[in-house]
Amino acid sequence: MSGGRVEETLRVFVEQREWDQFHSPANLAKSIVIEAAELLECFQWSEDADRDRVAGELADVLTYCHLLASKLGLDPEQIVLDKLEVTGRKYPVDRSRGRSEKHDQLPD
Amino acid sequence: MSGGRVEETLRVFVEQREWDQFHSPANLAKSIVIEAAELLECFQWSEDADRDRVAGELADVLTYCHLLASKLGLDPEQIVLDKLEVTGRKYPVDRSRGRSEKHDQLPD
Amino acid sequence: MSGGRVEETLRVFVEQREWDQFHSPANLAKSIVIEAAELLECFQWSEDADRDRVAGELADVLTYCHLLASKLGLDPEQIVLDKLEVTGRKYPVDRSRGRSEKHDQLPD
Amino acid sequence: MSGGRVEETLRVFVEQREWDQFHSPANLAKSIVIEAAELLECFQWSEDADRDRVAGELADVLTYCHLLASKLGLDPEQIVLDKLEVTGRKYPVDRSRGRSEKHDQLPD
Repeated sequence: MSGGRVEETLRVFVEQREWDQFHSPANLAKSIVIEAAELLECFQWSEDADRDRVAGELADVLTYCHLLASKLGLDPEQIVLDKLEVTGRKYPVDRSRGRSEKHDQLPD
Repeated sequence: MSGGRVEETLRVFVEQREWDQFHSPANLAKSIVIEAAELLECFQWSEDADRDRVAGELADVLTYCHLLASKLGLDPEQIVLDKLEVTGRKYPVDRSRGRSEKHDQLPD
Repeated sequence: MSGGRVEETLRVFVEQREWDQFHSPANLAKSIVIEAAELLECFQWSEDADRDRVAGELADVLTYCHLLASKLGLDPEQIVLDKLEVTGRKYPVDRSRGRSEKHDQLPD
Repeated sequence: MSGGRVEETLRVFVEQREWDQFHSPANLAKSIVIEAAELLECFQWSEDADRDRVAGELADVLTYCHLLASKLGLDPEQIVLDKLEVTGRKYPVDRSRGRSEKHDQLPD
């Protein structure tokens, strides 16, 4: 999604409203967790959640993630791929297959 | 990023490890907020944070966001754009310019 | 727990380490959500969680709650009781019995 | 606060509404992080927050903490004191004084 339509649309949206002044990295990080908790609220009392409501809350999380990435000059697609390599080394297929434990609790 | 390299890479990563069984929408929503809080931890005691550490934590949030979107058949790019239209109507430029209040507390 | 042993023990603990300088209300609020997410991590992939681990994480949440209450001169016991009155009016027994909906979605 | 007025008041409140059926430990953990994020929202764009609003949100966090403690038979006061001993050993006064680093990053 980097360099794409979303980044440009968000940039214009924020610029028009002069909201960049509020978007310090720390404030964006707070905003991500605030929106993530609203997403979780869809599942607070039940595993079932309304798909449209989930879509809207997930969109809010993603929006602030994009704003933080832009602010720090990070490519959202690339950092996911980079981190996946790190995670892949911590969770080798043969040791982690079908297991949900953390890497330091996986059997040898 | 929809339909792109990230989605396919994540799909293979999860399939190889047979982790899909753990990825109910509710569990993914929990994971998003857990990772979002680790991102916030970069800023717990200071506005300054190490950019590489932030990149790694932001990547974790985005990864679970992509997994939840895939699970629900949502296009991450499209839901952001759709939600931005809704948000744009709640925050008209002339009333929200330079203000951080919530839409129901903006001056007329 | 107000005015009690916990408050005094925490006060001495923080004073000895000269940590009060880091404990702005905003930083304590961040810390509460960071610890709350670690508590949630006990339940990330399963409803079952180790009771001792939960106790330790819950203690961290409570610790920062006490520090924030002290910082703002709030009595933790009293604010819970005060809020319960407000909540009780929003959720009258006859309308909310056996229901998990939010107050604005309860049937008449 | 254990065994005290808050615990008993909460017990009656929940019993009257037959809400105990929703209060699995996992759901209470979700609720704690959801309320913690609402508390953080008081500080989303500014260090300054309305004290009454903070008191109300902090009360919600504490309420769910008490419900989880009760559910697991934990004494909220005791687990805080117990954890403080553990934390005290990880952060000896002479090494942690005036420092906000994590214990594994403190200087020797």
